[in-house]
Amino acid sequence: MLYYAEPVGRLIEELSKLPGVGPKTAQRLAFHLLHVPRSEAVALAKAIVEAHDKTLYCSVCTNLTDRDPCRICGDANRDRAVICVVEEPRDVVAVEKTREYRGHYHVLHGALSPIEGVGPEQLRISQLMARLADPELKEVIVATNPTVEGEATAAYLARLIKPMGVKVTRIAHGLPVGGDLEYADQVTLLRAMEGRREL
Amino acid sequence: MLYYAEPVGRLIEELSKLPGVGPKTAQRLAFHLLHVPRSEAVALAKAIVEAHDKTLYCSVCTNLTDRDPCRICGDANRDRAVICVVEEPRDVVAVEKTREYRGHYHVLHGALSPIEGVGPEQLRISQLMARLADPELKEVIVATNPTVEGEATAAYLARLIKPMGVKVTRIAHGLPVGGDLEYADQVTLLRAMEGRREL
Repeated sequence: MLYYAEPVGRLIEELSKLPGVGPKTAQRLAFHLLHVPRSEAVALAKAIVEAHDKTLYCSVCTNLTDRDPCRICGDANRDRAVICVVEEPRDVVAVEKTREYRGHYHVLHGALSPIEGVGPEQLRISQLMARLADPELKEVIVATNPTVEGEATAAYLARLIKPMGVKVTRIAHGLPVGGDLEYADQVTLLRAMEGRREL
Repeated sequence: MLYYAEPVGRLIEELSKLPGVGPKTAQRLAFHLLHVPRSEAVALAKAIVEAHDKTLYCSVCTNLTDRDPCRICGDANRDRAVICVVEEPRDVVAVEKTREYRGHYHVLHGALSPIEGVGPEQLRISQLMARLADPELKEVIVATNPTVEGEATAAYLARLIKPMGVKVTRIAHGLPVGGDLEYADQVTLLRAMEGRREL
C-alpha cells in the first residue's frame, strides 16, 4: 500500500473487504470514487451508514424493514392464509418480483448447516412457530434454496409444522424456463421428471 | 425499488453507480454491508469521504497525493534525469510495482480522444512542458496505454518535446511474458517482430 497516498490506500483496503472485490477491482473502484464529484461520494457513504442505522428486523416476519411491522406484514390486502418461508431478505425481493404471490413471508436468515455451526437456534424458527397459532393460516410454502442446506431446512420445517395441522409445501424443482434439456444437470432433470404434470 | 426498505433501496441505487456493478451485484453488496458490524460499514463510508477530502494533486507531477509535493517528487534519491509519462494514477502504481524504475512521473489524467472531447487542454500537458526546463532532465518515457488514444497521445507528446532537445522514448510493444504466440493478436505480434533485439 506504499504506492498509494495513505487515504487512497485505506479506501482500497476497505473496498477489498467487500464480497467478490479483489485488489484490482478495489483499486478501480477507489479511483472511480476519487474521480466523481464529492457529493456523489458522500451520497454513497451516507447510504451505507443510513442503511445500517435506519433498518431493523420486522417483529413478525424478521425481514429487513424501515418500519415495524414491515410493509408486507402491515398490508391488510395480503393473504394471511399463506406464509412463504425464505432464507434471506433478497429472496423476498425475488418472490415479490414475480408479482403473483400475495401471501406473507418469513425470513430465516440462513439455512441449517451443521458444518458452519448453524442449527435451528441460529435461524428465526421459533418466531415462525409462534405465527402458526394464527387460525387463518392454511399453508406454509418452504422456498429455501434447492441446495443441501436448503433441503435440510425444508425437511426440518416440514417435520416441525405438519403435526400442527398446517399444510407444508415445497417449491417445485425442474428445468429453468428458457433452459436447455441438454445442459441440465442429472439431478435437476430427474426432479423435473418426478414433478411432471398432465397437460 | 419498492421491494426494499427505503434505506436499503437507496444504498442499492448508490452502489449501482459504481463501474462494473450491476443491479444484482449492488444488491449483494448492500445486503453484505447490512450484515457486517456497524463499525465496518462506517469504516468504509469514512474511507470514501476521507479519500476525497484528504487527497490533492501534486503540483509537480499531478499525481494523487496526501502531501505536496508528493512522496516521489519530494524524494531526493529519485533520478531527476527521467520522467515517465502515464495516463492515470493507477499507472504510476503499476510501474512502481516493477521496483526497477527510479525516475520521476507525470500523470496526464487521460489520453487524447477527439471523440470524447479530450484535447491537449484537458490533459496536464502544460505542466509537463514546464518541467522540461529542468537542465538535469535527459529523457521522457511515454508510457501511455497501447491503445489508439494512448498512441495518439504519445505521438503528440513526441512532436511537442523533441524540438526542446529532450529524448522521447516509448515503452516497448510485444508479447506479454508468459503469453502464448498462438494467442497473440496480429498487431501485437507484428510489433514484437519489429521490436526484436539481437541475443
